[in-house]
Amino acid sequence: MATNFQVISKQGKARVGQLTTPHGTIETPVFMPVGTQATVKGLTPLQLEEINVSIILANTYHLYLRPGADIVAELGGLHNFMNWHKPILTDSGGYQVFSLGEMRKVNNEGVIFRSHLDGSSHHFTPELAIQIQEQLGADIIMTFDECAIPDERQTAEQALERTHLWAERCLHVKKRADQALFGIIQGGIFPDLRRASAEFITSLEFPGYAIGGLSVGESKTDMLKTLDMMDEILPNEKPRYLMGVGTPLDLIEGVKRGMDMFDCVLPTRLARHQSAQTLHGRLNLMNAKYTQDPQPIDPQCQCYTCLHFSRAYLHHLIVAKEILAGTLISIHNLFTLVELMKRIRQEISKGTFDKFAQHIMPMMLEDS
Amino acid sequence: MATNFQVISKQGKARVGQLTTPHGTIETPVFMPVGTQATVKGLTPLQLEEINVSIILANTYHLYLRPGADIVAELGGLHNFMNWHKPILTDSGGYQVFSLGEMRKVNNEGVIFRSHLDGSSHHFTPELAIQIQEQLGADIIMTFDECAIPDERQTAEQALERTHLWAERCLHVKKRADQALFGIIQGGIFPDLRRASAEFITSLEFPGYAIGGLSVGESKTDMLKTLDMMDEILPNEKPRYLMGVGTPLDLIEGVKRGMDMFDCVLPTRLARHQSAQTLHGRLNLMNAKYTQDPQPIDPQCQCYTCLHFSRAYLHHLIVAKEILAGTLISIHNLFTLVELMKRIRQEISKGTFDKFAQHIMPMMLEDS
Repeated sequence: MATNFQVISKQGKARVGQLTTPHGTIETPVFMPVGTQATVKGLTPLQLEEINVSIILANTYHLYLRPGADIVAELGGLHNFMNWHKPILTDSGGYQVFSLGEMRKVNNEGVIFRSHLDGSSHHFTPELAIQIQEQLGADIIMTFDECAIPDERQTAEQALERTHLWAERCLHVKKRADQALFGIIQGGIFPDLRRASAEFITSLEFPGYAIGGLSVGESKTDMLKTLDMMDEILPNEKPRYLMGVGTPLDLIEGVKRGMDMFDCVLPTRLARHQSAQTLHGRLNLMNAKYTQDPQPIDPQCQCYTCLHFSRAYLHHLIVAKEILAGTLISIHNLFTLVELMKRIRQEISKGTFDKFAQHIMPMMLEDS
Repeated sequence: MATNFQVISKQGKARVGQLTTPHGTIETPVFMPVGTQATVKGLTPLQLEEINVSIILANTYHLYLRPGADIVAELGGLHNFMNWHKPILTDSGGYQVFSLGEMRKVNNEGVIFRSHLDGSSHHFTPELAIQIQEQLGADIIMTFDECAIPDERQTAEQALERTHLWAERCLHVKKRADQALFGIIQGGIFPDLRRASAEFITSLEFPGYAIGGLSVGESKTDMLKTLDMMDEILPNEKPRYLMGVGTPLDLIEGVKRGMDMFDCVLPTRLARHQSAQTLHGRLNLMNAKYTQDPQPIDPQCQCYTCLHFSRAYLHHLIVAKEILAGTLISIHNLFTLVELMKRIRQEISKGTFDKFAQHIMPMMLEDS
């Protein structure tokens, strides 16, 4: 068995679960930092462990192009390659290929696209996406889907048809028994398409389900309406992964609607742009008002950065263009989300999650 | 007493010593990583501790300009500011001001120079250099000296006269009892000037002596000839610091000639340029031949990087422009020098340093 999932406790739709994989057990709800190119930018695996990260993401499209899945396989797979021996999830590359815009052409067979690195031409199919992910060797792998512009009905319908076709083909060619293949639900912002997609994809009996194509430009209301529908369609006993979502506010919104897994590049991207996340909004540490500020980013936070460094020091590193700034702020931003998820699990277990969410959400800014 | 130095054992001119400072005891010979802007580039203080770094350098000129010595002082001094609670040495800024070339004017009073950051005008004097270093609060501080082009007799003479004058002024204004002020010996490549400088500076009875103005463009022969003279002039019971020197080969050459302390930006600078140091030369990890190389940088090395990552992974990080590359290679490069110094201390203690040096030096390339 590649993975095993158990719901431990529930409050409303919110669930605490345990997802067991060949590389360890993940407590859910969980935030998964993104290591696109086989590195969570600026952090060593040891630093990720110190933050209590339990699972990370890597990217099929990027690793296929560079260094190549065969090289990663030869070097013992992704876990050995990047020295991360806890669970890894690889996304299938569907979203990245979709993001190439003019540089890709889709038909039922697959996608022909040009590399963003050198313009070279590539042909991605569901079969190839699975083959690459089997070479990379993550614990959880994803079906190859077509992500469409969320509010264009016709393209959403077409994309959905292909996504379903491709999900079956992925399932059909998957060989490795130690990897769990999650199915992806698409359908844009259209409730009937989302329902049809959820029903079709769950009928294929994947060990986990992802909600794709959200947080890609649609309104917050549309995102939440889509999530609102999901709990009753998705089987209770399988993990649910809301792709690409990761502000503190959205994490709580997702958990409230029965989501278990989340990923987002935001915490590390913000950090590289001098922005520190807290549950009550962001601090732009480039701001001159921090020049002499002896406080840590967040006086409540127990991360390595907040326990040892002042805003003034971080401001100095930023102004002096020292890369340690990005590393220290990334540590803080990721720790903040990891701790939030831990708190959320505790609150659900105690049956106080609703109260916690009611208390904390009004204090959160939209960007937090 | 700010510092206390004891020679523990000797072999020829080579010495093992213990330098006790308010922030801990340093075993010498020691290599000191450089944290110019109050950060050893790309590494957290925790990572430096894991490498067993016992003392680091910071830079008076750079910290005076940014963030300003008053800000560092307000935030509790350099140790608190950068969260490094082991010994720190600040150099005086003499070398940096000298490096400004056309942008500075020297007279007996001091140096007027333009900031490399914004062109603003500043007036550095020996008194100001001490005041800044007292604000920064390092364990070991340095006299403000004039570093001259090493092979121009006339400028070397003039610079020497000022360096001596300024050393006396530094000593005169120094107030903090918990800091040790080291005197700097100049004199370019001229044996008579070097002798005169060493005799004058040691007559002022500093708690430690530095050899400045080497490794700045003179030939290796000239550097070694200068060092050859020093042991008999310098008092045995005081630490000796060879400034700016730090290739593995030069470290051994320095230790052989009775030097105790060394600093160099090379290990971290090389790392940021994809170059890994070993005792047998450098590896440019950008080279395509490492694309699939499963070996660590140095199979003998026990650093975090070599224990966990292949050359292929480091090559991938470099090609993918991931900053983790610089961090991981810096860890390796610094560890290599820290371990070399530890080995050197062991060999001196056992009375086998000469044999060790004879064995290893022919295997070292000039750049190693």
